[in-house]
Parts: sequence; structure tokens; C-alpha cells
Amino acid sequence: MFLTRTEYDRGVNTFSPEGRLFQVEYAIEAIKLGSTAIGLKTKEGVVLAVEKRVTSPLLEPSSVEKIMEIDEQIGCAMSGLIADARTLVEHARVETQNHRFSYGEPMTVESTTQALCDLALRFGEGDEESMSRPFGVSLLIAGHDENGPSLYYTDPSGTFWQCNAKAIGSGSEGADSSLQEQYNKDLTLQEAETIALSILKQVMEEKVTPNNVDIARVAPTYHLYSPSEVESVITRL
Amino acid sequence: MFLTRTEYDRGVNTFSPEGRLFQVEYAIEAIKLGSTAIGLKTKEGVVLAVEKRVTSPLLEPSSVEKIMEIDEQIGCAMSGLIADARTLVEHARVETQNHRFSYGEPMTVESTTQALCDLALRFGEGDEESMSRPFGVSLLIAGHDENGPSLYYTDPSGTFWQCNAKAIGSGSEGADSSLQEQYNKDLTLQEAETIALSILKQVMEEKVTPNNVDIARVAPTYHLYSPSEVESVITRL
Amino acid sequence: MFLTRTEYDRGVNTFSPEGRLFQVEYAIEAIKLGSTAIGLKTKEGVVLAVEKRVTSPLLEPSSVEKIMEIDEQIGCAMSGLIADARTLVEHARVETQNHRFSYGEPMTVESTTQALCDLALRFGEGDEESMSRPFGVSLLIAGHDENGPSLYYTDPSGTFWQCNAKAIGSGSEGADSSLQEQYNKDLTLQEAETIALSILKQVMEEKVTPNNVDIARVAPTYHLYSPSEVESVITRL
Amino acid sequence: MFLTRTEYDRGVNTFSPEGRLFQVEYAIEAIKLGSTAIGLKTKEGVVLAVEKRVTSPLLEPSSVEKIMEIDEQIGCAMSGLIADARTLVEHARVETQNHRFSYGEPMTVESTTQALCDLALRFGEGDEESMSRPFGVSLLIAGHDENGPSLYYTDPSGTFWQCNAKAIGSGSEGADSSLQEQYNKDLTLQEAETIALSILKQVMEEKVTPNNVDIARVAPTYHLYSPSEVESVITRL
Amino acid sequence: MFLTRTEYDRGVNTFSPEGRLFQVEYAIEAIKLGSTAIGLKTKEGVVLAVEKRVTSPLLEPSSVEKIMEIDEQIGCAMSGLIADARTLVEHARVETQNHRFSYGEPMTVESTTQALCDLALRFGEGDEESMSRPFGVSLLIAGHDENGPSLYYTDPSGTFWQCNAKAIGSGSEGADSSLQEQYNKDLTLQEAETIALSILKQVMEEKVTPNNVDIARVAPTYHLYSPSEVESVITRL
Amino acid sequence: MFLTRTEYDRGVNTFSPEGRLFQVEYAIEAIKLGSTAIGLKTKEGVVLAVEKRVTSPLLEPSSVEKIMEIDEQIGCAMSGLIADARTLVEHARVETQNHRFSYGEPMTVESTTQALCDLALRFGEGDEESMSRPFGVSLLIAGHDENGPSLYYTDPSGTFWQCNAKAIGSGSEGADSSLQEQYNKDLTLQEAETIALSILKQVMEEKVTPNNVDIARVAPTYHLYSPSEVESVITRL
Amino acid sequence: MFLTRTEYDRGVNTFSPEGRLFQVEYAIEAIKLGSTAIGLKTKEGVVLAVEKRVTSPLLEPSSVEKIMEIDEQIGCAMSGLIADARTLVEHARVETQNHRFSYGEPMTVESTTQALCDLALRFGEGDEESMSRPFGVSLLIAGHDENGPSLYYTDPSGTFWQCNAKAIGSGSEGADSSLQEQYNKDLTLQEAETIALSILKQVMEEKVTPNNVDIARVAPTYHLYSPSEVESVITRL
Repeated sequence: MFLTRTEYDRGVNTFSPEGRLFQVEYAIEAIKLGSTAIGLKTKEGVVLAVEKRVTSPLLEPSSVEKIMEIDEQIGCAMSGLIADARTLVEHARVETQNHRFSYGEPMTVESTTQALCDLALRFGEGDEESMSRPFGVSLLIAGHDENGPSLYYTDPSGTFWQCNAKAIGSGSEGADSSLQEQYNKDLTLQEAETIALSILKQVMEEKVTPNNVDIARVAPTYHLYSPSEVESVITRL
Repeated sequence: MFLTRTEYDRGVNTFSPEGRLFQVEYAIEAIKLGSTAIGLKTKEGVVLAVEKRVTSPLLEPSSVEKIMEIDEQIGCAMSGLIADARTLVEHARVETQNHRFSYGEPMTVESTTQALCDLALRFGEGDEESMSRPFGVSLLIAGHDENGPSLYYTDPSGTFWQCNAKAIGSGSEGADSSLQEQYNKDLTLQEAETIALSILKQVMEEKVTPNNVDIARVAPTYHLYSPSEVESVITRL
Repeated sequence: MFLTRTEYDRGVNTFSPEGRLFQVEYAIEAIKLGSTAIGLKTKEGVVLAVEKRVTSPLLEPSSVEKIMEIDEQIGCAMSGLIADARTLVEHARVETQNHRFSYGEPMTVESTTQALCDLALRFGEGDEESMSRPFGVSLLIAGHDENGPSLYYTDPSGTFWQCNAKAIGSGSEGADSSLQEQYNKDLTLQEAETIALSILKQVMEEKVTPNNVDIARVAPTYHLYSPSEVESVITRL
Repeated sequence: MFLTRTEYDRGVNTFSPEGRLFQVEYAIEAIKLGSTAIGLKTKEGVVLAVEKRVTSPLLEPSSVEKIMEIDEQIGCAMSGLIADARTLVEHARVETQNHRFSYGEPMTVESTTQALCDLALRFGEGDEESMSRPFGVSLLIAGHDENGPSLYYTDPSGTFWQCNAKAIGSGSEGADSSLQEQYNKDLTLQEAETIALSILKQVMEEKVTPNNVDIARVAPTYHLYSPSEVESVITRL
Repeated sequence: MFLTRTEYDRGVNTFSPEGRLFQVEYAIEAIKLGSTAIGLKTKEGVVLAVEKRVTSPLLEPSSVEKIMEIDEQIGCAMSGLIADARTLVEHARVETQNHRFSYGEPMTVESTTQALCDLALRFGEGDEESMSRPFGVSLLIAGHDENGPSLYYTDPSGTFWQCNAKAIGSGSEGADSSLQEQYNKDLTLQEAETIALSILKQVMEEKVTPNNVDIARVAPTYHLYSPSEVESVITRL
Repeated sequence: MFLTRTEYDRGVNTFSPEGRLFQVEYAIEAIKLGSTAIGLKTKEGVVLAVEKRVTSPLLEPSSVEKIMEIDEQIGCAMSGLIADARTLVEHARVETQNHRFSYGEPMTVESTTQALCDLALRFGEGDEESMSRPFGVSLLIAGHDENGPSLYYTDPSGTFWQCNAKAIGSGSEGADSSLQEQYNKDLTLQEAETIALSILKQVMEEKVTPNNVDIARVAPTYHLYSPSEVESVITRL
Repeated sequence: MFLTRTEYDRGVNTFSPEGRLFQVEYAIEAIKLGSTAIGLKTKEGVVLAVEKRVTSPLLEPSSVEKIMEIDEQIGCAMSGLIADARTLVEHARVETQNHRFSYGEPMTVESTTQALCDLALRFGEGDEESMSRPFGVSLLIAGHDENGPSLYYTDPSGTFWQCNAKAIGSGSEGADSSLQEQYNKDLTLQEAETIALSILKQVMEEKVTPNNVDIARVAPTYHLYSPSEVESVITRL
């Protein structure tokens, strides 16, 4: 009775007869093609770890940025279209800066996440800030505010969830299972680093080196690990 | 004589030969995929209860918000696309705040509901505030104003009805039948809590816990139950 | 020689080779799916009666509003999409209020009707006030002005006619025949009430009760009947 | 070599390979479905007569307006979509009022006709005043100015012609033949009334009564005949 | 390898694979359906003559205007869609008036022609002044300025050429051949009148009368011939 | 696996799967239908020569302008759609005038060419100045500035190249071969004139006369040859 | 289950069911048709080398610019659509100039690259600065700032990477392999020149001459090699 789904995905923001938004679902497919990223929340702070996919030995590994600072106490890891992620992060940076300027205090992690998702939700609306298609990116947002450390996960539909631990990207299915087995709320930050990297190692097709993974923590401020700091986590595995 | 319905649902806001608006009907399908929410009006106030669908043990249950405060004496439960619901709730919050500021008194529950539906109706119009598709969400709006407690139900077409009790979401059909059997106007608020949760329990596929349901009341002010308050209602079942 | 009609109804406001506007015709179909409404003009005033279709015993019958006040001496009954009707009525309320404010006198019934139809006609034009599709609603507008009582009937094309009596909605065909048989210009208002309700009773599939019909009169001011007033008309049948 | 015409009529204002504008031609079809209207110019003034098609005995005949005043000395008869005609007439009324206000003298009949056609020509242009499709209406514009009486005929393409006599609508073909036989420049106004009505009588499927025809004259001011004046013309037949 | 041409003519202003603009070519077809017009330049001035196609004896011949004044010393004859021509002529009148006002001297014939063509070229651009399709009209622009008499010919593509003599419309092919045989630069204005009318006579299907042709000259000012002046040219044939 | 190319050329500015922009390629086809134009750069200055295609003896040869002045020391020859070329030339004239006014010195030939190409590149962008399709024209821009004489060639993609000699239009292939054989950097201006005309003669289907070719030089100022100057070049052949 | 990819590439910026953006992929194809460009970073500075494809001996080789200066210490080599590249370079020049003016210091190479990519990312958004399709060009951006020399590579998706060495264009696959073999971080600038040119020589189909290659360095300022400087590098091969 219905035509195939392909009839419904041309309008960027239109329901199918089953009540689905295909462009959003396709954007989620884009993320399944992306590199894996992992986040874990501990009482001491949040750890983020990503696979970098340095496709050529001539590429400068440090220029493949998949973990970025948003504000002094907020950072994020991404999977999917990097250029899209940059737009979202840039938007969040402006929002957090404006908040600091207007209210004299940092924006909370949840408000920052909501601001990102408001922009993501409005694709196809023709606004100045929005895009004509969904943002093809998922983010793990790690932060620290008056409520302590927190970890949020966003998807292309503009929805977000607070998590204790979460994996995104091509290896997310296996990584999420491992996280459920290994995670508990009493992990130390160092244990979280080790778990994140050991799970990344399982899903990556190549040997883990300081060149092809990045690690960052928000504890309570954002810090991207130097190659030697990454090396020392690798050594602990 | 007519082509299949699929020819008519591409224009987001166009009649089919039978006088139907398919995008609205498809949005309603989106809600049938959503989690179940239930509302009951008593003389003492209104009770809202929702299923939370916490899909992973790593998710923070409190971040899956399906009951939200709109104004001091108005709250709502939702089923469907959460990001859409957030946009509607945010719009309603601004409207109620503006009303308080301009007139020095709270907005009535019906006016608040009407304001939400005005926005929902205008999808596809290219306005600043409207979306390019129907909002894929139904709301149960619980409130208290000079006319006492009231419960409204809205759908994606921008229509609303006042109800004594109503269920929305994937389990709404069975839940509505149970409500018709069990509801009467003389229920106490406590009895309403029990009925709401016992019906939710029937339609949910897993055991009810403070982690996977939320309960709130407007009696006469909005209050979201703490896990221990939810626990005590569960105990009463 | 021509393709089927379906080729022509995609442009919301485009002629078919036979000179027809299909979106308007499809909107008229939407009204044929609507509940029945009846209006009768007498020398004493105009009577409106509607079927309410309260689909669930949990619904508050008074919140299913299918007769609405426009101005002190103008009211209307509707059939079709309720949310569309609300937009038209709201527009008419603003127009009549502005008229009173600017000219210090009420707007005439015909001018009010014309204002509604001007908005209805301009669908698909991209104006601030207009919609991207025809309004899927017919109205019976009852009013009283310096020319005495009058009854107007509008359809989705933005055309209107003045009538002595008229039925709209799913039962309109049978109801119109009955009206032609039973109507004469010397009816009293009470006789008109009885005729309206007896005809509604014929076309409704359930027993007539104060819960599932509404009656209003403009004689010379708008008055929506209370349940007990409706009950007394039912008793007279 | 060419596809069928249906490939070219989707763009509202696009040439076909044969140099035709199909939307305009289809709008002309809409007029062929309309009621018949007739105009005759005499030295004493212009006569307009229209068939009213009162489809139900419950309709108020006087509310089926197919002859309208534009200015003190200009009126018009219409065939096709009444709501479209109202828009054009309202536009012409504003133009003539503005002219009187700016120049202290009435607008000429030709300028008024040109103003109407300028609006009709610009369909599909996205202007504030224009429509997204051709106006589905033809007008017979009767007027009197410094050049004496005149009669203009407009069609949906925005073209106009000055005529001595003209019929439009479903019966126009037969009526035009009769006019050519019976018209001469020395007719009195009364003879013109009789000819107009006798020709209308031929093309109408029902008996002519004051309820189903309207007559007006501009001689030199616009006057719509009362039922009794129409009756007396009928008597003369 | 290519689809038929019909695939390329839907975008109003898009090249076909052979580098053609079909909408412009189709507009040129519209002119081939139009009445014939002829222009001749002599040392004394320019003559324009057109066939009027008065389709009914009830039409006022003088209202079928196919030769129009643009400025005191510029006039034009047209073939194709009359309503389109009126828009172009009105635009040219405003331009020449503005020029006189700004510079205190008449606009040259070439600048006037260029102004018309600038408007014609920009169809489909969404400008305030431009149309959504090509103008379906060709013009013969006769004028007199500091360079003496001149005759320009424009087509729907917005291109123009200066000519000694030119025919446009349905009979243009035969008329152009005759012009090439009979034209020389030393013709008197009177000889030009005779040639123009004798060629028109050949291509017209009916007898030439003052009712179905118009003649005008710019020598050096624009003058449209009265019926008796036309009659005297006919007599000379 | 791919559909034919025709699926990709409907969007005016969209890549095909092979990375091609078909509308630009089709516009280049339009130029291959155009008349031939030739440019040669010498140390003394640049020579431009064009075929004029005077299609009728009644056309004024001087009104077929295919070589135009842009600034005192810049001129251009064109092939393709003349009306498009006029728009580009007019744009360049305004740019060079503004430059002179703002900086008190002439715009360089390269900057002028760049300004033309900026406009050509932005087709389909909906800007005020840009067109909805590529400009269907190639230009040979001859100029003289502080760097001495120069010759540029532009195509519809908005790309330009500096050349010593170049032919465009329907005869460009053969003409370019001949230019490669006959061109050297030490040609005198007179030799260049002779070469240009002798090559034009080869590709034209009719006898070369002062009526059907135009010649211009920029040496160092723009000069369009009079018929007698053209005649004297013809004599030299 | 899915239609072929061709169904998804018509919307310029829409995901396919596999999460791909086809217009971006097709733009990347455009670059594979382009000439080869190579960049190498050394401690002394960055070297860029490009193949020029001078298609005719009459073309001025120096006007085929495929290496351009952006700022005093930033240059870029390009492959793909030259006109698109010019737009990006012009945008970057304005950005770097504005930065110098506002902050009194040069823009960093990364910020300059980000500014280019921001513009590239926003195709299809209808912004003033953005295009309606992806920019069909890849750039190798060579620069020197407070962090020393750096080399960036951008693609049509608006993504960029920092590299030690990189080849783009039709010969990039083979050239990248050669670069991986021959590159090491301790190359002198002169060795980098030799490697770049020897690799270009392998992928070019014709003999390398100062006419068909360009070389530039940023060490630390931008310098485009003169023909004799290129000659001396060729001699070293």
C-alpha cells in the first residue's frame, strides 16, 4: 500500500506514513560510519576517548581534532561529519561566552547541551543559523558545573540524554556492551581512562598509539592529553 | 481513479482527494510509537504518569524528562518526539511568563493550551516560530487556575480537548479502556496516583521502578515526584 | 487527452484543464467528514445547533466547542477541521474588535463574513495571515445588526451566501432537504430550536443528549445554551 | 515530438511549445462553467443583466451578488469564481477612491479597467497584491465618464476590449450571436433592458423571475434594479 | 542520448543540451500566432501599420490598440500578447518621462529600446519589475531623435536590431519578402504608407477597412491616423 | 548504475556524478552556435574582428553590435547570446567608471575581466545582479594598461585566460588552428588586422564586406573601424 | 530496497539512506578531473608545485594561475574548478586583511583555513556568501605563522587536515604514494622542490617546462618562482 521509503526522504523534514523522519535516520547512519568515541563519568570527573583514523602517514595527527573544548569546564568528543561538528561546537562556544558575559557565571552543562540541540533540531527551517539538512554528527559532552561532573549524549534529531557512560560511532554497539559490563559509579578517573582506552582498542582495527587516539578529561577543567600522557595510559593497559 | 495516498503526502500541508491531511496523520503515527503517558483529573488536582523507556543502564534516568513544568501551576506529560515537545514547552513557558509580566496574573490553562496549539497548527507556513512539518508530539497538560484543576489533551493537528482522564502513546488504547472503567469524578488524588500507575504497569513490558516511570501532580502547584515518592506509590499497588 | 486529476492537485492553487481548483474541492471533502451543524433564521433571531461527537466518556463535553462567539451579536457554528475554524474565528474577533475601536460601532454581519472569506481566499499566497492550504472548514455565521437577524454560510473557496436556513457537515444533504420542507419565514425562535434539534436527531447515529449537541441563539445577542436549556429543548421534541 | 499539454501547465505562468499559457486557458474554462452575464451599451447608458443560479430555496437571492458597484458611475457584472471577482472589485474600488482623493475627479472607465487588468496580469509573480494563479473570472465593466457611456470586457489574461454589447459565462456563445442580430447603436435603454433579459431567458434553464436574475444600469450613475423593477422588465418581455 | 526537448523547458530560464533557451523560443511561437505588424523607415519619418483582428462586430475597433505612443517622438506596433505589451509600453513611458525630468531632454530611441529589452531579458529573476516568464510580444519601435528617424525591432529574448523595414506576427514571413522587394531608402512617407498597407492587405484574410487596420507615423512626432486618414490611404492602393 | 546525464542538468548549478556542471556545458554549446570572433595581441595593441550575420538586407548593419567599448582603453568582442553580453558589458562599464571615480585611475584589464567573471560565476544564486542561468556568452576582452596591451578570453563558467590570440564561436576550431600557424609575437598591428580578417573569411559562408564584419583595435585606446577603414583592410587581403 | 543513488543527489545537501552526501562526493569527482598539485612541508618552509595544463600555445602561461597568494605568509595551490577557487581565495584574502586591520597581527594559517572551510561547508544554505552547490575545488594551503611552517589540505565538504605532504587532483593517488616513500621531516627546502617536481613529472603526460608547471614557497614569506627559477629546479632533476 505504501511506496518504498525512498519516496519520503526527499523532503528534508517530512514524516513517513509510519511516523518516521528519514533524513534524521540517514544522518544517524552517517554517524555509524564515523570513528568510535567513548565517554565515562566518575566522581572525580569525566573522561573522553576517541579513535582518530589518521588515514595517511603524511597527515599531522594533532590536526585530526575529534575532541574539542567548548568552555573552560566543558568539552566534547564527536563522531560523524567533522565539519558539522565544528559548526555546532562553534555555536556552543559563542553561547557559553555570551552567558558568561551576560550573567558573570559559566553556563551549565545541560543548558549548553540544550543550546546545541536547539540548533540541531531546526534543520530545514531556513533560519540564519540552521542547516538545510540534519547535522550528521553525534556528540559526547563532558562537563563540570555546580551539580558536579556530567556526561551528555546528543543525536542528529536534537534529542539528548544524560549518561554515566556512552559510546558513539562505528564501534558503539560493542563498546556499549563492554561499558555496561565494566562501568560502576565508584571508578576512579584513572580507572575510567584505562577502561575507555581498552574498549577503544577492541573496536579499532589497528594498534593503539598516541597518534591514533585522543583522550581528554574534565576534572573539573577541560584538559586534552599530550602524546606522552596518552602514552602512559597505553602503557597501563 | 485516485492515485495511492503517497501522491498527496509530499506537500507538507495539502489535502488529499478525501479531504485528509496526511502529514498530520503520519505525525500521529509517530506518537503511537512513543512511550505511554496518563493523566487523571480529581477535585484535589491532576495526576500525570509516564513510562520513561530508559534504554540502557548507563543512561541517567532523571535526564529522560517526559514530564515538564510549564508554569507554577501548569505541567505536561508528553509522548512522541522529545525534541519537538521541548520546543512547544519552551514556547509555552515564554507565553506564560509574558502573560504574568504583562497582566500580573497567571495565564489560564486553556489559554496556555491554545497558545501551544496555535504554534502546532502553523507548521509548513515558513513563520519564524513554526516548523516545516507537524510537531510529532501529543501533550497532556495538567493545570490549576481560577476554574480549579483541569486536564487538556493536544494532538499534532493543533486541536485540543478537555478531559477527565486520558492516555497517549503506544499503550493508549488499552490504557484508555482501563481509565473508562476505573475513573470517577470523586477519586482522591491518592487514588488517581494508584490508578495511573497500575494502568501504566499493565502496558509496560518491564517491571515498574522509580527509574522507569515519572509521576507529577498539579495540586494546586506543579510537583514532580522524587524517586522515593514514586517508590511509595509503587508500594501501594 | 488529459492526465488524471491527480496531476493537477499538487500545486495548492492551480487550475485543472476543466477550470477547477482541486485543493478547494478536497477541502470541501474534509467538511463532508465533519459533524453536522444547522442554522435557521427567524424574525426573532437566529438559531445554531451542532452535533458534538464526544468520542470518549472521559472527554469534557463543554471543551468540544463547535459553536463560538465572534462578537456580542455574532456567533458561528462550524464543521470540518476545528483548529482551522479557531484561526478564522480568532481573525474575525480581532477584526470586529478593531472595528468597534476605530468606528465606535459594531461591524455588520456581512462585513465580518467578508473579512473571514478574504482570509480564506488567500491560501497558498505566502502572506503572514494566510495558510499554505485552504481552510478545511465551513461556517454558519449567525448575527444581528442594523438590518436585523441574518445567517451566512461560508465554504473553503472564500465564497459566502446569505441563507434562511442551512446545514453543513456529514449529514448536510438530508438535513437540507428537511429544512426546505419545514422552514418558513414566520417560525418563532422556539419553533426553530425544535426543528434544528429534530433534524440533528435524524442525522446523528446516537441518542441526543445535552452532552452531544450544542445550541446557541443570536436574538439579538449571542447566547450559548446551558445543558439544562438544551435539555428543555430536547424535552420539547 | 512534444509531450501532451499536461506537461506544460504545472508552472502557473509558463509557455507551451506552441506559445500558449495553459493556466490562463484553464481559467477561461472556469468562466465557461459560470453563470451567463450580458452587457449592452446605448447612448443613454449601459445595461448589465446576469443569471443568479440560486441553488436552494433557503438561500437569500439578494446575497448572490453578481453585479457590483465599483464607483458612483461604474459597475460590473461577473462570471466565474465569485470570490476572485470580489478581490478584483475591491481593488478597483480602492483605486477609484484613491483617484478621487488625489485628483478631485472620478477615474475614467478605461483607467479603472486597466487597473483591474494590471492586477490580473501579474498572477504567479509573488507580489503582495497578486494571486498565485490567474483570476478565474471575466468582468463586464459598465461606466460613464467624460467620454459618455462605455462597456469593457476583461478576461483572465489581463486583456480588455471595449464593446457595444457582450455576453460572458456558460451561455455566452448563443447569447453573443443573439446580441449581434439584435444590437444597434440607436437602442434606447429600455429596449436594451428587454433584449438583455430576453437573451438571458433563452440561455437559462429555468423560468426568469426577480429572484434568479439581476439587472443594473449606469445611466449615468450606477443603479441596481429592485425586484419590482426587474419584475416590470420581465412583464415587458 | 538526450531526452526530448520537453525535459528542458520546465525551468523557465535553463539551457537545453544544445544551448537553447526553450521558453524564449516558445514565447516567439506566441508571436507567430499574433496579428501582423509592419514598419518602414523613410527619410521623412517612420510608418507603422497593423492588422487589428476585430473578432466581433460588437467590439469597439478603436479599443483594439496595437499601436501605442511611448513618448512624443516614439511609438510602437506590437504582435503577440497585448497585456504583456501594455506592461512593456507602460515601463517605457515611465523611463522616457523620468529621462525628460532628470535631463531636460528626450530619451533617444535606442536608449528607450534598450530599457524595454533590459526588462524583457530579466524574466524569471524574481525582480519587482520582471515577469516569471518571457514577455510574449515583439515590438516595432518607431522614433525620431537627434539622429533622425529610426526603427527598432525587439524579440522576447531581450535582443533588438535597428531596421529599415520589418514585419512581425503571423504574416511576417511573406511580408518581409515583399518588404525586401519594395523597400528602398528614398521612399517618401506617403509611398511607405502605401507599401505597408498593400503588404498588410496581402497577408490579411479579410478586406482592409479603417476598422481592421491602424496606421501611425513618427514624422517627427507620433501621430495615430484617424479612420478617415486610414480610409484615404486605402483609397490610394 | 547512473541515470543519463539529463537527470542532473535540471538543477541549474548542481554536480553530476562525474563532477560536471551541465548547465555550464550547455551554455558553452550556445556559444558554439554563435558567430565567430577573433582577437590578436601585438606589441602595438590588440585587434578584434567579428562576423556580424546580418540576416536580412532590411537590417541596419551598424545596429548588429558584436564589438563594444567597455572603457577608454578596453573593448570586447562577443559570441553567443547578445542580450546576455550586453548585461555583462554594462556591468563592466559601471565597474570601470566606479574605479575611475574612486581611485582616479583606470581599472586594469585583468581586474575588469575578473569583475565580469565574478558576475558570471554566481548564476543561480538569487543575487540582485546574477542571473538564474549561466550567461550564454564568451568574450574576448582587449585592453591596454600599465602592463601594455593584453587579450583575455572568458567562458560561461566564470573562468578567464590571458591569450596572445584566440577565436570563439561556431568557427573557433578552424580559426584557432589557423591562428596557431600564423601568429607570432612580432606581428605589426596591420599584419594582425590582415590575419584576423583572412581567417574570418575562411570560416564565414558568405563574401566578406564592411556590412558583415566589424573590426576594432585597442592601441592604446579603443577604436571601432569605420566601414571605409574595414574596406581598406579587406582590400589588403 | 533502496532506489539507486541518483534519487538522492538532487537535493544539493541531503543525506542518502547510507548517510552519504552525494553532491559533496560528486564535487570531489570534479577534483579528480583537475590538474595535479603537490605540497611539502620542511623545517625551512613549505613548497607548492602544480601542473598548469596550458591547452593552447596561444595561451599566456602566466595567466593560468593555480598557485595564489592569500596573505604575506600564506599561499595556496588548487585543483578543480578555478573560478570556485578564486572565490574562496578572495574570501580568505578579505578575512586575513580584516584580521590584520582589527588585531594588528597576521591571521594564523589554521584560522585562515577554518574561514575558508566555513564558507565551503555552508553551500546550499542561501546565504549571501555561500554557493548553491559545493565548491568544486581542493586547496593545499601553505603558510607560516608563530607556530612555524604548516601545510593544510581542504576538500569540498569543508573539512581540513594538517599534513606534512599531500597531493591533490587527477594524479594524486600515485603522487601520494611517491610522497610517502620520499618524504621525511628533515628535508631541506631545495630537496622538497626537487621531490615535488620529480613527482609532478611522473604524473604529467607531457615534458615539464617553466610554461606548464608553477612552483611557490612560503619560507617564511610567499614567493612564486619566476620561469628562470623554475628552470633551475628542472635542471636539478
